[in-house]
Amino acid sequence: MTELSSQGDVPIPRRPAGGRAARVSGEPTPTTIVSLLEAEFDRLWPDGVTGLDAVHRYAVIPTGKLLRPSLVVHAALVVGGDLGAVLPAAAGIEGAHVGSLMHDDIIDRDGERRGRKAVHTAFGPAQAIIAGNALFFAWFAALAECARRGVPADRVQRAMAVQAGAGTAICRGAFEELTMRGDLDHSVDDYLAMARGKTAALFEAACRVGSILGGGDDHATDLLGTFGDHLGIAFQIRDDLLPYESATAHLMGKPADSDLRNHCPTLPVLLAHQRADTAARAALRHTLSDKTDPQTALHRMRALLEETGALKTAHAMADHHARLARYAISQLPASAHTRALSHLTRTPAKAAPLPSA
Amino acid sequence: MTELSSQGDVPIPRRPAGGRAARVSGEPTPTTIVSLLEAEFDRLWPDGVTGLDAVHRYAVIPTGKLLRPSLVVHAALVVGGDLGAVLPAAAGIEGAHVGSLMHDDIIDRDGERRGRKAVHTAFGPAQAIIAGNALFFAWFAALAECARRGVPADRVQRAMAVQAGAGTAICRGAFEELTMRGDLDHSVDDYLAMARGKTAALFEAACRVGSILGGGDDHATDLLGTFGDHLGIAFQIRDDLLPYESATAHLMGKPADSDLRNHCPTLPVLLAHQRADTAARAALRHTLSDKTDPQTALHRMRALLEETGALKTAHAMADHHARLARYAISQLPASAHTRALSHLTRTPAKAAPLPSA
Repeated sequence: MTELSSQGDVPIPRRPAGGRAARVSGEPTPTTIVSLLEAEFDRLWPDGVTGLDAVHRYAVIPTGKLLRPSLVVHAALVVGGDLGAVLPAAAGIEGAHVGSLMHDDIIDRDGERRGRKAVHTAFGPAQAIIAGNALFFAWFAALAECARRGVPADRVQRAMAVQAGAGTAICRGAFEELTMRGDLDHSVDDYLAMARGKTAALFEAACRVGSILGGGDDHATDLLGTFGDHLGIAFQIRDDLLPYESATAHLMGKPADSDLRNHCPTLPVLLAHQRADTAARAALRHTLSDKTDPQTALHRMRALLEETGALKTAHAMADHHARLARYAISQLPASAHTRALSHLTRTPAKAAPLPSA
Repeated sequence: MTELSSQGDVPIPRRPAGGRAARVSGEPTPTTIVSLLEAEFDRLWPDGVTGLDAVHRYAVIPTGKLLRPSLVVHAALVVGGDLGAVLPAAAGIEGAHVGSLMHDDIIDRDGERRGRKAVHTAFGPAQAIIAGNALFFAWFAALAECARRGVPADRVQRAMAVQAGAGTAICRGAFEELTMRGDLDHSVDDYLAMARGKTAALFEAACRVGSILGGGDDHATDLLGTFGDHLGIAFQIRDDLLPYESATAHLMGKPADSDLRNHCPTLPVLLAHQRADTAARAALRHTLSDKTDPQTALHRMRALLEETGALKTAHAMADHHARLARYAISQLPASAHTRALSHLTRTPAKAAPLPSA
């Protein structure tokens, strides 16, 4: 293992395929990046506060996997950008993500998140709506901070357009998901369009914003954006699969039965429905119905997904998008940061993206 | 009356105090402004759509008083800006305002808005949360459109910082209001700080964004911002007074009993509490309690506010801030647009800001 990966941060392949050295003198190490991100989080959402700030601190700290911030940072560094200048945008995107989770938990009536009370449970739904909104605006305030740290105005303005477009896409995806609930007749294309908005748009935006703020040209920004899009889709499919894989899945995010309880048309369920015969379709519908208790439903659904081969196909689709993501990155000059991005396409079971994960 | 005011749009004093002519050849007339704004609304939120777009169309059209868009436009024109280039930002701020109303109505359990079903009643609370969020992001997407229409990147970037700051301030104000509910021991200063965030921040932002995008210098932008701040406070106080003034108040916005039902610490109620003796305070608390039916509470509260002189004082405070707003504007070179802004400080009963009001 290289020096970088021996720290357990962003693992680097033992034998880089070529290109620049894995570590350029003076280049920020993964440990440095994490420390700087954590300092930025503490600056934006300090401890020992009250009111709205206390809600934000509770929602944001301890952090999740820092996946989206790490995309912003690595994308900026891939194109030779200044780490210090993009840090606010990197922290800001995590805020926007957390804000959307806070609203999701209200909508999905999920009382827990990451093994403790969801924000609306701890502080009240009105407070969670408002605090989520504030995090959306803080995302743009953080971008303004990048300008104060020396990022040229035209880059900030272009990054704003990307953030605004991604925010809109997330809402479209979330709205589409509401419309799809309880209906098993949706195609895989419907699902992908929804997942692209709900999840992949923010991954793509993280990569594009990092590249734009870092001074990347349109070609690099498009490749990084394509990477983020495919990574996001792979991530969403793997998220759909999580309740059927791990007994401790609920510790990593929302409750394991949330999708089932909310009749969400996840990819494996849609695939199983496509392949099922009339009897199996009836069993699927019954399992999704309110009449089945959540834990029983989860076990029954797992069996149905196994029988139809839906789990296997969904895994293959996630891997396919992960490969497409790596292909996009492979077209950029190889560096520690392209490798760090590539590594993020591996399944969570194989690698955590950052040590605070 | 001048040609402009005879159209019933933005009335202009019969004898301008001095400065430039009320109407410069080629300068957009109020009718032109309204037509262009309505076209911009139709472009952003077109008719004949489905899903999220249909929710937005329902929420935004027919428009309200277009107060905030008219602030953006007039502020831009005061500093000599290009009307066509700022129109998206002007329409966008109305979207952000409507988005916040959609969330307010969920939080306040107000089932009606402007005499018809509130968005959460018509489409569902989850849909209203998501659609409100999308309107916040659309506000920034609209700003990106201004860049495509020729506004320089540095102005767009500064306007973004203003929008982000205002969005955050609105959330802080709304959160503060939740905290203040049911508690009558707040000072007038507490109230003003809350109203400044909840309401005046968006008025101030409208003026600042218009000035910045229009190319105004810092001095002009600050004067216009000060105008917006005072106008916003006057507006909020007058909004607080509305349920005690007009039998048809509910047609203009939220239900007349909403503030009482939600135990909101409006200015007249806080003033009455400060002035009341022990018996009258008990009557106030009882009137605010859940035990009193809303219509009875409204009538009783009106009597208490009259007796203590709170209505009169609140009116005087609104007029005071309206005067401060006009004073800020008076320091700018006089034009049709400074006069249009000045006119907006008059009470709604005396003048509607735009014909579609």
